[in-house]
Amino acid sequence: MSTPWSKMAQNTPSSVVRDMLQAAQAPGMISLAGGLPAQTSFPLEAIRLAYEKVFMSGSAALQYAETEGYRPLRVKIAERLESKGLPASPDHMLLTTGSQQSIDLICRILLDPGDRVLVESPTYLAALQVIQSYQGVSHGVACDDHGMLPESLEEQLQLHRPKLVYINPTFSNPTGKVWSRERRQQAVDLCRKYSVLILEDDPYGEIRFNPEQLDVPALAALDAASYEGPSNVIYTSTFSKTVAPGLRTGWILAAPDIVKIAARAKQGADLHSSSIDQRALHALLETFDLDGHIRHISQDYEERMKKLTTLMASKSWDGITWNSPQGGMFLWLQLPEGMLASNLFTYGIQEKVCIVPGDSFYAGTPELNRMRINFTHTDPELLPEAVERMDRAIQRWHASNQSDHVVTM
Amino acid sequence: MSTPWSKMAQNTPSSVVRDMLQAAQAPGMISLAGGLPAQTSFPLEAIRLAYEKVFMSGSAALQYAETEGYRPLRVKIAERLESKGLPASPDHMLLTTGSQQSIDLICRILLDPGDRVLVESPTYLAALQVIQSYQGVSHGVACDDHGMLPESLEEQLQLHRPKLVYINPTFSNPTGKVWSRERRQQAVDLCRKYSVLILEDDPYGEIRFNPEQLDVPALAALDAASYEGPSNVIYTSTFSKTVAPGLRTGWILAAPDIVKIAARAKQGADLHSSSIDQRALHALLETFDLDGHIRHISQDYEERMKKLTTLMASKSWDGITWNSPQGGMFLWLQLPEGMLASNLFTYGIQEKVCIVPGDSFYAGTPELNRMRINFTHTDPELLPEAVERMDRAIQRWHASNQSDHVVTM
Repeated sequence: MSTPWSKMAQNTPSSVVRDMLQAAQAPGMISLAGGLPAQTSFPLEAIRLAYEKVFMSGSAALQYAETEGYRPLRVKIAERLESKGLPASPDHMLLTTGSQQSIDLICRILLDPGDRVLVESPTYLAALQVIQSYQGVSHGVACDDHGMLPESLEEQLQLHRPKLVYINPTFSNPTGKVWSRERRQQAVDLCRKYSVLILEDDPYGEIRFNPEQLDVPALAALDAASYEGPSNVIYTSTFSKTVAPGLRTGWILAAPDIVKIAARAKQGADLHSSSIDQRALHALLETFDLDGHIRHISQDYEERMKKLTTLMASKSWDGITWNSPQGGMFLWLQLPEGMLASNLFTYGIQEKVCIVPGDSFYAGTPELNRMRINFTHTDPELLPEAVERMDRAIQRWHASNQSDHVVTM
Repeated sequence: MSTPWSKMAQNTPSSVVRDMLQAAQAPGMISLAGGLPAQTSFPLEAIRLAYEKVFMSGSAALQYAETEGYRPLRVKIAERLESKGLPASPDHMLLTTGSQQSIDLICRILLDPGDRVLVESPTYLAALQVIQSYQGVSHGVACDDHGMLPESLEEQLQLHRPKLVYINPTFSNPTGKVWSRERRQQAVDLCRKYSVLILEDDPYGEIRFNPEQLDVPALAALDAASYEGPSNVIYTSTFSKTVAPGLRTGWILAAPDIVKIAARAKQGADLHSSSIDQRALHALLETFDLDGHIRHISQDYEERMKKLTTLMASKSWDGITWNSPQGGMFLWLQLPEGMLASNLFTYGIQEKVCIVPGDSFYAGTPELNRMRINFTHTDPELLPEAVERMDRAIQRWHASNQSDHVVTM
């Protein structure tokens, strides 16, 4: 008997990148592929103490809990958001098992098969996959270094009448770019004009190398400042990059009706996320200097990024360029025309260095000569060797006569 | 602007029972309504030590982890299942955020709008809701005290050509009943005959009052013993009732292709469940006498059940009967014809005792004179008072002339 898969299952292909990450597990591989924070950055001792506090407070943490999530943690998160200029209330918030679940729940409550979603070009791969799994159709909006181009956004809003605009505007995955304040306001205004909701995915926004130099409020904050009534922006973030991903705790902040319906969807999906982890995060936030910790991580990441780009620059690779991110976890590489990222990936694997080709990060026709580099996970001591290997992979490419053919592994 | 909800959202109504549980929160209320285990049963100290062990082992627990779940825990679970006669491999297993997520993922990968699912009559309410959210259509199969009636099951398999048969055969929610071995084998054979998958939801199976008296292997075990090749039964269970629900850890054991596709769906849904909780459960299972603990809980629950039914029997309520469960967490009450459970619920709320009417647990036309009583959560000291209040609620019903009208709160 062959299993009668649903259309959802049929529209949930295995992630190409996931398969690549399997390659990254090979012995001796240096991986700049995954989107992982530095394991050395996790405040292990503070987290340990936080869990200890939870268990000292009795067994309530072990019982079933409300779908919306542990309320005192929602209060803490709302306070943090308010302190950063984003109006927030614990009643307009749903705790989730990380940002990925936030994206999934929002697609679940909004998308019917055939519904359109506008996304950045390129955009976060796993969001594309979730949209596809609900049989939604993603359309890429043209972007430059400052965000979505307003004329492209408006044209596509008119053309596609989308249900949602999904964006990752601050230190985007995969590019590491940050939208300017002006572009944020323009997107907020255009989506209000066409009555289209924005899903602002902000996992990296707090990882800022020079916070004082950046004036980039969340689109949710700009929307609240510009318009009365319920927010038109669904804002989601997570503790995965500021504390640790293993705690699997993110949140959705949105208009009350969105939060209410998302909570119903979550009740069907898993009743609630781990209340122990939520309570531990709450205990952590009571005493731990999270802002100081984030400053510390951000400095560490900036140093790693600078070390990597300095090493790369010393190689004088012909026609290969990259940006200099002001935060987040990723660099975006541009290869010369005709140098296929997928081929360079293969040569990289042969040299035991793993970098992700950009191809999978596009809703429509991909740019084939882009690559994403994560600079936060690999031990900085390994970066010189990683760049040597990248250099040898590039030499392999030059030595081959197959610049425009696909090389198989 | 009104939010353009998806059909999934429109098919995810607020749970009636959830609203009733809100009523159960009122001050002074004694609730026999929720499906909660006894908070006093949680092995708090052992759990505390288990988390401590996890943090002692370093920060790996805090990093992103694989979607399938922490492998050493899957190994432990497989060993436990094998020891109870259910063939199991960690490779055919996916860890989830509890049984609810298991049900959701299975519906996600199997159900298209309009697809039929056969369920017991009555069945677990939240499964009905998940099936509905995927726009599946549930059909109830007639049941007696020993499980689904084979003739009704076969008739409906022929009539509806369902994608799935969902069952909760061991100490069912809501009835507390347990299927006989014979009925299990018949269901396994019929579903093989018609090539229809079974989803065996088994959260309560280990909570047995007299384990030696029961010969009720999991349907998954009978299927494996009777047929070659991949299992036709998707088996799901959880640590929510044997350790604690707050750890939000359940599992799916199924044929390799089901597990593979469910893992892809889970990757889109939330990447993975809390790895800290999974590792803590693994650490717990290494030293904790879980079987002894389960025997202890089961004795406690049996005493609670007996205390409650003895108190109820002493009232000599005219025409009200109930079963005597051999395990699990629920009693199923039958009221006289014409005594609407929803009215008795309302009188109960007025008397500050909360019991759930059975109406919502049916796929089709409900029996309107059934009620579910949870005997595991309320402090046993409160049971005499709870029964007094039930008695007064019943007296209110008799005093009213509205036996067949709906009384509003």
